[in-house]
Amino acid sequence: MTKGKVVKPLINAFNGRTAKSPPVWVMRQAGRYLPEYRELRAGADSFVDFCLNPEMASEATLQPLRRFDLDAAIVFADILLIPHAMERELHFVAGEGPKLCPLSQNDNLSLLEKSWRLHKLEPVGETLQRVREGLPDDVALIGFAGAPWTVATYMVEGGGSKDKWKSRLWAWKDPQSFDLLLDIISEATIEYLQMQAEAGAEVLKLFESWAEGLPEPFFERFIIRPARNITEGLKARGVNVPIIGFPRGCGHQALRYAKETGIKAIALDQAQNGVWFNENLPTDMTVQGNLDPAVLRVGGKALQNEVARIKNSFSGRPHIFNLGHGITPDTPPEHMTQLIEQVKRPI
Amino acid sequence: MTKGKVVKPLINAFNGRTAKSPPVWVMRQAGRYLPEYRELRAGADSFVDFCLNPEMASEATLQPLRRFDLDAAIVFADILLIPHAMERELHFVAGEGPKLCPLSQNDNLSLLEKSWRLHKLEPVGETLQRVREGLPDDVALIGFAGAPWTVATYMVEGGGSKDKWKSRLWAWKDPQSFDLLLDIISEATIEYLQMQAEAGAEVLKLFESWAEGLPEPFFERFIIRPARNITEGLKARGVNVPIIGFPRGCGHQALRYAKETGIKAIALDQAQNGVWFNENLPTDMTVQGNLDPAVLRVGGKALQNEVARIKNSFSGRPHIFNLGHGITPDTPPEHMTQLIEQVKRPI
Repeated sequence: MTKGKVVKPLINAFNGRTAKSPPVWVMRQAGRYLPEYRELRAGADSFVDFCLNPEMASEATLQPLRRFDLDAAIVFADILLIPHAMERELHFVAGEGPKLCPLSQNDNLSLLEKSWRLHKLEPVGETLQRVREGLPDDVALIGFAGAPWTVATYMVEGGGSKDKWKSRLWAWKDPQSFDLLLDIISEATIEYLQMQAEAGAEVLKLFESWAEGLPEPFFERFIIRPARNITEGLKARGVNVPIIGFPRGCGHQALRYAKETGIKAIALDQAQNGVWFNENLPTDMTVQGNLDPAVLRVGGKALQNEVARIKNSFSGRPHIFNLGHGITPDTPPEHMTQLIEQVKRPI
Repeated sequence: MTKGKVVKPLINAFNGRTAKSPPVWVMRQAGRYLPEYRELRAGADSFVDFCLNPEMASEATLQPLRRFDLDAAIVFADILLIPHAMERELHFVAGEGPKLCPLSQNDNLSLLEKSWRLHKLEPVGETLQRVREGLPDDVALIGFAGAPWTVATYMVEGGGSKDKWKSRLWAWKDPQSFDLLLDIISEATIEYLQMQAEAGAEVLKLFESWAEGLPEPFFERFIIRPARNITEGLKARGVNVPIIGFPRGCGHQALRYAKETGIKAIALDQAQNGVWFNENLPTDMTVQGNLDPAVLRVGGKALQNEVARIKNSFSGRPHIFNLGHGITPDTPPEHMTQLIEQVKRPI
């Protein structure tokens, strides 16, 4: 270790190191459960404006670090900024989530490619630079993007959707054009993630939040292949930061995802069996996640037991403590304090 | 084989027999995609009234058999009839699905037990008897119920729910009282399924439709244990019909479900890897399902390929052809004709 150089616990976890107490961060740690976030958010008209305002977005990113002893900051942004930068009209409806003008199989996909403007997302790079300046020496900075299938389903459905019905119909009717859609999103994602790494992101995360219920014959084609294209595309461009993959709701297919996409760490949702993954994952694969956000909401003894169980599940393996999904707005901030205190306490 | 006794292909599949072409039925085969169903349904005020009207419900059950060469009929009913027979106010809102008066952790659960009246569901028995009389000799009759966790989440959330948040909070806060809720539902389910078997159901199916995303530490406790209690409870009462379990959205945990609950057949959703299950399931376990309802909606070559793929996945194992979820109202009935024709064609 070079004298004076601070070793970041999160980065250590990607270098194959195990720790007595794992580094910890929390999905949506910058968000609505924090009163200071709600106050800040009230200062912007739209959610997209907020994400693309480096002053506000960097402040939102840093807020949880002032309260909690976290090992990472994740840039405040949204997985739908890529469709936004492809001129797909995007707005957020309170209580309903994101709405987009739906993309259909009959639309000209080459227009998407032509409309894509990385520079529309440069404010995210500026947010990362600002955060990097304000970050304690031992805290790592994470950038992210939605994985192509997840982003595509939002674009096709016109918003969130329980069953991704229109996307599945399109996929069965014309899988080649769906491949093309995913390729266009993948290329944009590579550029966007490269820009984030160059702006200071030391780790990148791919959110495949909506792969749940995807017909199995498409798993390799629509989930594995695009993720691999992104990790390889980044490598080809000289971007060598570790990548966390989060194939949510994919059951044991997450093992294939871990082995075949070129990611460095696999994030597990709360339905996954940690012990089974610990036994079956490659020994040098870092693992993250698995805590139910509901038990963080509940806190107390239940949370304490779950923290201990998850630490035990992954003992002997490089491990980053996190939830299986984002922290919810109704969670008392004191439960975050309890969580981190118990994660940091050696077993 | 006794002379004159017709062997039902569906029953053969439970006796460990493999067939050149598997028997076939389809979840929600009696339903809104059929114009004659929509006409019949218009004759009843509420969906609950319709389910509990043996004349209408038996007619709905038999309708698809007049059109298609199916190997099974499934009684027309709903998994929420058990809460209804526990005096939990239930109604169906067009376009929104079922609504119930939400059950909370502070409610007196013994009241549920006291309110339970099997006789309120006797019309379902009468429907089964009527159907049995009208059924071709080679068609098997299936009864069903919701599995306890799925029924409980509807009762707690007050309807369908993406994340089952209130149920998960209750489970973490007070798992013992959630056990009690599941036990009360399980006991009612045993009585209800026994009644269905005595009324003529030759196969029973347990629908665990909402186990997706359940925190893993609860899988044994809230999914496996209640299902095992039901299969054992039925056996203890002398009910010896085969039971199909359908743990939807559970990934590889479905393998544990198959091995540990005492079911005779496992139904797989479309996200499951059929080849993996074929390799890992006990050799005498019958398998059902896996076809994406979206490819049935699409039809044509895509459907043809998928039928062939699924038949191949389960070749050498007792297999019942079915979807991974219910047929959707927008599916043209002719696609059912195509499906069944292609299932029945020897590979």
